[in-house]
Amino acid sequence: MGEKKSNMTVNPYEVKGNVDYGRLINEFGLEKIDEDILKKIKKHTKNELHPMLRRGIFFAGRDLKWLLGEYEKGNKFFIYTGCGPSGPIHIGHLMVWYFTKWLQDKFDCELYFQFTDDEKFLYKDLSYEEVQKWTEENMLDVAAIGFNPKKTHFIIDTKHAGIMYPEAVKIAKKITFSTIKSSFGFNDSNNIGSIFYTAMQAVPAILPSILKKKNIPCLIPHAIDQDPHFRITRDILPKLGYYKPASIQCSFLPPLTGFSGKMSSSSEGVKSILSTDNPAEVKNKINKYAFSGGRDTIEEHRKLGGNPEIDVSFQYLKHFFEEDDKKLAQIEKDYKSGKLSTGELKKYTIEKINKFLGEHQERRKKAKKLVSQYILKT
Amino acid sequence: MGEKKSNMTVNPYEVKGNVDYGRLINEFGLEKIDEDILKKIKKHTKNELHPMLRRGIFFAGRDLKWLLGEYEKGNKFFIYTGCGPSGPIHIGHLMVWYFTKWLQDKFDCELYFQFTDDEKFLYKDLSYEEVQKWTEENMLDVAAIGFNPKKTHFIIDTKHAGIMYPEAVKIAKKITFSTIKSSFGFNDSNNIGSIFYTAMQAVPAILPSILKKKNIPCLIPHAIDQDPHFRITRDILPKLGYYKPASIQCSFLPPLTGFSGKMSSSSEGVKSILSTDNPAEVKNKINKYAFSGGRDTIEEHRKLGGNPEIDVSFQYLKHFFEEDDKKLAQIEKDYKSGKLSTGELKKYTIEKINKFLGEHQERRKKAKKLVSQYILKT
Repeated sequence: MGEKKSNMTVNPYEVKGNVDYGRLINEFGLEKIDEDILKKIKKHTKNELHPMLRRGIFFAGRDLKWLLGEYEKGNKFFIYTGCGPSGPIHIGHLMVWYFTKWLQDKFDCELYFQFTDDEKFLYKDLSYEEVQKWTEENMLDVAAIGFNPKKTHFIIDTKHAGIMYPEAVKIAKKITFSTIKSSFGFNDSNNIGSIFYTAMQAVPAILPSILKKKNIPCLIPHAIDQDPHFRITRDILPKLGYYKPASIQCSFLPPLTGFSGKMSSSSEGVKSILSTDNPAEVKNKINKYAFSGGRDTIEEHRKLGGNPEIDVSFQYLKHFFEEDDKKLAQIEKDYKSGKLSTGELKKYTIEKINKFLGEHQERRKKAKKLVSQYILKT
Repeated sequence: MGEKKSNMTVNPYEVKGNVDYGRLINEFGLEKIDEDILKKIKKHTKNELHPMLRRGIFFAGRDLKWLLGEYEKGNKFFIYTGCGPSGPIHIGHLMVWYFTKWLQDKFDCELYFQFTDDEKFLYKDLSYEEVQKWTEENMLDVAAIGFNPKKTHFIIDTKHAGIMYPEAVKIAKKITFSTIKSSFGFNDSNNIGSIFYTAMQAVPAILPSILKKKNIPCLIPHAIDQDPHFRITRDILPKLGYYKPASIQCSFLPPLTGFSGKMSSSSEGVKSILSTDNPAEVKNKINKYAFSGGRDTIEEHRKLGGNPEIDVSFQYLKHFFEEDDKKLAQIEKDYKSGKLSTGELKKYTIEKINKFLGEHQERRKKAKKLVSQYILKT
């Protein structure tokens, strides 16, 4: 698919240009999350909606009405999400996972969390050992999220290959290279592991059904670039007797440098705020790199006001770090009017991020034991 | 490669036409087994040569001189061979495996025996369950060969995926789809499991080195159609720090109907003599189907003689069932002169095959316990 048109590319292996989410909904054939879906969600969350739902950060999905309908009938779903361990964790990752925790808590779900170490080894210029090191590191961050230890299961592709490969083979038999080419923009020079890989990414969507010997609905929270994988998964699974997995998809947290592409952990530290950044690092990154929607001079800004739509600090607050809607609306208003300067906005954003990361890092320090508890026993 | 020219195709997924082995040696770049290699082998076998070596049935290989040189220096090799479980075992399979037993006994080697259930599922119109059933069945035949139980290890791809997939991924990263296309004649409509598969077939060539944490030379006895897999394996393994596996390769036991293609277990029973055939079935198959090099009438035959070169019964004796060189030479001479009729030749061949299969079947009956002993513990 590649979804190339007017400089936009969105697939698991490339995100380029200014992402037009409205167009992606059409081109990917996604369902927009509407009032009806939000109402159905609220029925099970004591009328509460996560800020990322209220603000349209998680904005689209597949089969959510069906999934919630099944839930109402007592046919509970499990959640499947994951992490590609190729570098340090940044706040764009954390955003999806903290939302996932909210989902797990509200719907009291089992969570299968996949670490795609095979994928990252096959696609990146990294050694096997480097990917293993990142897997260890990244598991600490995921454990720090605070998922329900009784209902959370880590799957590491190479460690769980014994149960995954036989299922991947059943899926792979139904996928041709033509499909891979059009879904991911591959060609004959791609390595054969990367060509096979999407079958491994499909497996967690059925693994609980296999382990528990009954067909269980699946919900996948993910950033929109992963959709091509799960479009294939959804095509194949019904042919093997399983439900199509439902999904709930978010837009990207913008890189520090502004709205083009997505945050990446491979351009380490420069474009991203990392889960392990200390307060001084966060302060420096925001002050130095965070693209500002403010005016060139403070005088101009006071007079004409700034543009929160393109201001990275404001967007970080909106996407993730400011839970209070009233507070956010006030900041938006004041920034637009010029009452709030870029410096003040950045200062506030730095405080919010540092408070959040401070708590995350405290949990991360104690996460090692939790990790071994989370890893799926086979 | 496909090796197509004047109606001959030889690759793991297609063997068609009259196979010209001399041409294959050139096109595949194989080393012919010459007097020098035979002499080197005899050094370690108390001057004995297996009939399949004396008669040129195993006629080519790769790096055999190097392998035997290492052996002389005390750097012992292990043997790797395998079985694709898609149907019943026929005498063409048995031929390679009984030769492999001779090698194991003479060189006192570890043997890793791979059952490629993933391959057969991915390439054939068979269900996963059918392939599992054939795997169980075929393991009985392999156990009946009588391999050294202390030094023989069965690997079943889907059962041992836990140790195999991580290694396959390292190999797969170095193989492009271009290579697969030219090696096996694939195209974009092949399924992605079949495209990945050759990486799984490469793994047993390094598995003992991994398990024992040292680089161990490997010898692969196989029929020549598997060479495209191992050409790729040989390209990749040195890049991962392992020896190139050596190989010793045989020509095909001809199908009952004569010298075109190879014996196949999927055309069940008609073109093949199966390991489980009873004496009446063998008798019927040879009498009814075995292509004869004799003359149309007995009078003509007595006068002009037959042609053992194209006579399937004679070839079965030569390839596998007549160990005595003098006896074989006498049969050849008498058949050529017309002294021995087709009927007499078939009768003798039936007796020899039935004696052999009777003993094999006796061991096969008791093989179930042995199988669980052979399966590699992980």
